[in-house]
Amino acid sequence: MSTGQTMSLAQPLGPSSDVPGHRHRPSRFMDRDAGDYALGARTVGGFKFAEDTVQFPTHSGTHVDALAHAWAGDELYNGHSASNTRSTRGAQRCGAEKLIPVATRGVLVDLVQSAGGPLAPTVEVTPSDLERGIAESGVEIRAGDAVLVRTGWWESKGATSNYYANEPGIGEAGARWLAERDVALVGSDNYAIEQQAEQPGFPAHLILLHQHGVPLIENLELTGLAATLHDLGRSTFLLVFAPIPLSGSTGAPVTPVAVL
Amino acid sequence: MSTGQTMSLAQPLGPSSDVPGHRHRPSRFMDRDAGDYALGARTVGGFKFAEDTVQFPTHSGTHVDALAHAWAGDELYNGHSASNTRSTRGAQRCGAEKLIPVATRGVLVDLVQSAGGPLAPTVEVTPSDLERGIAESGVEIRAGDAVLVRTGWWESKGATSNYYANEPGIGEAGARWLAERDVALVGSDNYAIEQQAEQPGFPAHLILLHQHGVPLIENLELTGLAATLHDLGRSTFLLVFAPIPLSGSTGAPVTPVAVL
Amino acid sequence: MSTGQTMSLAQPLGPSSDVPGHRHRPSRFMDRDAGDYALGARTVGGFKFAEDTVQFPTHSGTHVDALAHAWAGDELYNGHSASNTRSTRGAQRCGAEKLIPVATRGVLVDLVQSAGGPLAPTVEVTPSDLERGIAESGVEIRAGDAVLVRTGWWESKGATSNYYANEPGIGEAGARWLAERDVALVGSDNYAIEQQAEQPGFPAHLILLHQHGVPLIENLELTGLAATLHDLGRSTFLLVFAPIPLSGSTGAPVTPVAVL
Amino acid sequence: MSTGQTMSLAQPLGPSSDVPGHRHRPSRFMDRDAGDYALGARTVGGFKFAEDTVQFPTHSGTHVDALAHAWAGDELYNGHSASNTRSTRGAQRCGAEKLIPVATRGVLVDLVQSAGGPLAPTVEVTPSDLERGIAESGVEIRAGDAVLVRTGWWESKGATSNYYANEPGIGEAGARWLAERDVALVGSDNYAIEQQAEQPGFPAHLILLHQHGVPLIENLELTGLAATLHDLGRSTFLLVFAPIPLSGSTGAPVTPVAVL
Repeated sequence: MSTGQTMSLAQPLGPSSDVPGHRHRPSRFMDRDAGDYALGARTVGGFKFAEDTVQFPTHSGTHVDALAHAWAGDELYNGHSASNTRSTRGAQRCGAEKLIPVATRGVLVDLVQSAGGPLAPTVEVTPSDLERGIAESGVEIRAGDAVLVRTGWWESKGATSNYYANEPGIGEAGARWLAERDVALVGSDNYAIEQQAEQPGFPAHLILLHQHGVPLIENLELTGLAATLHDLGRSTFLLVFAPIPLSGSTGAPVTPVAVL
Repeated sequence: MSTGQTMSLAQPLGPSSDVPGHRHRPSRFMDRDAGDYALGARTVGGFKFAEDTVQFPTHSGTHVDALAHAWAGDELYNGHSASNTRSTRGAQRCGAEKLIPVATRGVLVDLVQSAGGPLAPTVEVTPSDLERGIAESGVEIRAGDAVLVRTGWWESKGATSNYYANEPGIGEAGARWLAERDVALVGSDNYAIEQQAEQPGFPAHLILLHQHGVPLIENLELTGLAATLHDLGRSTFLLVFAPIPLSGSTGAPVTPVAVL
Repeated sequence: MSTGQTMSLAQPLGPSSDVPGHRHRPSRFMDRDAGDYALGARTVGGFKFAEDTVQFPTHSGTHVDALAHAWAGDELYNGHSASNTRSTRGAQRCGAEKLIPVATRGVLVDLVQSAGGPLAPTVEVTPSDLERGIAESGVEIRAGDAVLVRTGWWESKGATSNYYANEPGIGEAGARWLAERDVALVGSDNYAIEQQAEQPGFPAHLILLHQHGVPLIENLELTGLAATLHDLGRSTFLLVFAPIPLSGSTGAPVTPVAVL
Repeated sequence: MSTGQTMSLAQPLGPSSDVPGHRHRPSRFMDRDAGDYALGARTVGGFKFAEDTVQFPTHSGTHVDALAHAWAGDELYNGHSASNTRSTRGAQRCGAEKLIPVATRGVLVDLVQSAGGPLAPTVEVTPSDLERGIAESGVEIRAGDAVLVRTGWWESKGATSNYYANEPGIGEAGARWLAERDVALVGSDNYAIEQQAEQPGFPAHLILLHQHGVPLIENLELTGLAATLHDLGRSTFLLVFAPIPLSGSTGAPVTPVAVL
């Protein structure tokens, strides 16, 4: 049934990546480049090389929120003290280096297809929306699945004045519905998984990350996957998820891969 | 035959990661942390969060060398002009964002097992060594395989004064042997794939990266994989390789995953 | 005659500083802060501290262009090869660490006062403008003077859509006029000293920095100085100029001080 | 009496600057360099330029500790709440941008001359040492003076295994002695002004910075100044101190200038 085809679900990350105003823009600095040789740098055996240094917020681009990212009260997921997450040390508990790779069944919930187009700003995705989207695909959510919700926000961003505000996404009820099904991962093609409007709280983050320990994958690129699955008449695939183990970070870049 | 178990082949990356002297040490900066709440930062609906920014050389930690990393003469792999790799722009050709995910057969060539211990500094891994290591595993290298060479350098680093000098690794002949077999990826548990001694050139880089377009995975963590494969009596696995698509970078962090 | 009063001519530099689109935004990262103590960090003898790391382009904020910043042909000022300015090394010649402190007579050429208001976008400041501005002040430019030209661009930036385009400033003839007078420093309250319009070249940079070795101070804050000098009925002062000796950098932040 | 000569009291700051292990090493990244032109970057009117971005801890190199740097209890100098110094915002009170330039009498207390050589590790400079050093110079400390204490630590660092440990410097009594004299600034040619031994507290920081609001200048270069003053038979000079106004930072680089 598998074609063996792989498909990246990640956006490129670099200086031209968009970030919200309160975050640092990703940077790339060349430490050595072809110009060094044009200006006379010596080589051994003809070998020339270039290399660079990068800087980016861990919650930019396609990334996973580690369990240290969000909490309520004084404790992270599983009762770890939040006081271990601070400037001098980074996250001593639940950091990105603790996220082990996962290879599991991925289910695409294609709301763009259900709705006939990208969801509008601030639209809340409800359990009924999820149920309808999944029913159309002819599968049922099982424990351990990775559920990827396509809202169309990323692919329609050209139509919005600001990608980083008012995204459509799952709401509190949708998050609870997913948590009850004991999914392994939740991802979406928007910047914060959950519906955002004025005075945004993050109830879905608290339910999924904080209460249930479900990592969240944000800023996914799902357009190509949707098209391919549509052509294949399927909505499931093997998802391999292996974030960069950034020690003590609250998130990490990841290139989730769909194997079809 | 597959157990479905996943195993990360990546080292953690962070402020305590070792880097060679000419590179910038990885950094993590907390932009918001639990201290902000201890000092009275307001929350909406009880939601608290922490986030950070990271900086690191793209050739630190477990990473892949993109095809823009190394060349000879004036051209990168496939005839692209090297002059497109420079300060202002990064790598316009053959950058890390061009590396598509790969899911392929991985073969572990366990030289630590063949040799009865970690290879000594500056030891060159020859085609005979590769043949012997592979023969022991009872498989043959096929086109498209990902070949991972365990030298023991990373795991024995406590015994050396400096991890970043004099590594054992494949030499020019070994690189040619691999290229002739049309492998998809070559990786090793050392810092530069190839044997290093005084006056180091990088012939294996030129053969694999520059002449044959074979990405190189460096600083792999292979100890656990070797032990597990040994227990299973196997030397192959499904390798899923999905580097972070850093636009215009000459390398990228990656968490290669062995699915067993 | 001197009142002993000091006045900074520098703008604050930090995350909210404006920079042109092609440059990195200044960043400040707290490495340790009060939150660490609120969360229980231990102290010795009650001592608590905070500290941070900063990052900024050397040509942001109030800064001086070092002689390595601009050139034509293959040579920097004084015949040093430009090929010594490259990624791996920074500027090996004429870097910011070579700029020795200067204490000299400063002369404010207050074109805002001459013109009755801030200069309009793209206005070229000519030798006649400089002569008129200086004549009003009743002094003559002498060799070794630091000449600061107030255009009003910085203080009127609220009225423009973009501070980093179309600034008024000295033109080629004005630069030549200043160079002929053998001034030690030239500064202005705009982003690039010289008039900018479509298809901008930088003739004043080439004349002053490259041909005559005159460092340029950009993004000066001159409003307060102008008001104070006006009250004192003077246009000269002691200027102390002591940039940060950033090794191998092409520019450096500086807080020029007027002693009145 | 003044010769008009200026002398920088700052060390160069760059990638080869030494920093203590817990701080980030200073970095310089070229954003554009001569290599771009060697590879064909276009120019307008022959104008070529290079520029870079720098990163460094604000307490590296020759720098001033702003009043937000150190405190005890819950309040900074002058009763400002320390809770305003945190990750998200930097120092909202007493940051480096609040340090106004100072031009005042500088007094060099040359303990290397008094002692006949550099002070040994962990030596405490007492009030008697300060009195003896100043008496030799034939002046008295006055309110508003900038007192620079030469210990010889920086210039003799070649003789030590680690510059960043066990420095000689003023102790608690010396700090109190200086505070009582109402000095404007205190500086020294070591990394933390005050004597350091095992289990270091920072009483001099608390007395000078926290209780009396006296900024501290660290890592001064005093060798040349000492020699020149010795030749001139003087121990005073005009000190001009104008740190970079880094918004919200706990310290800032500065090039203090002695005008002789």
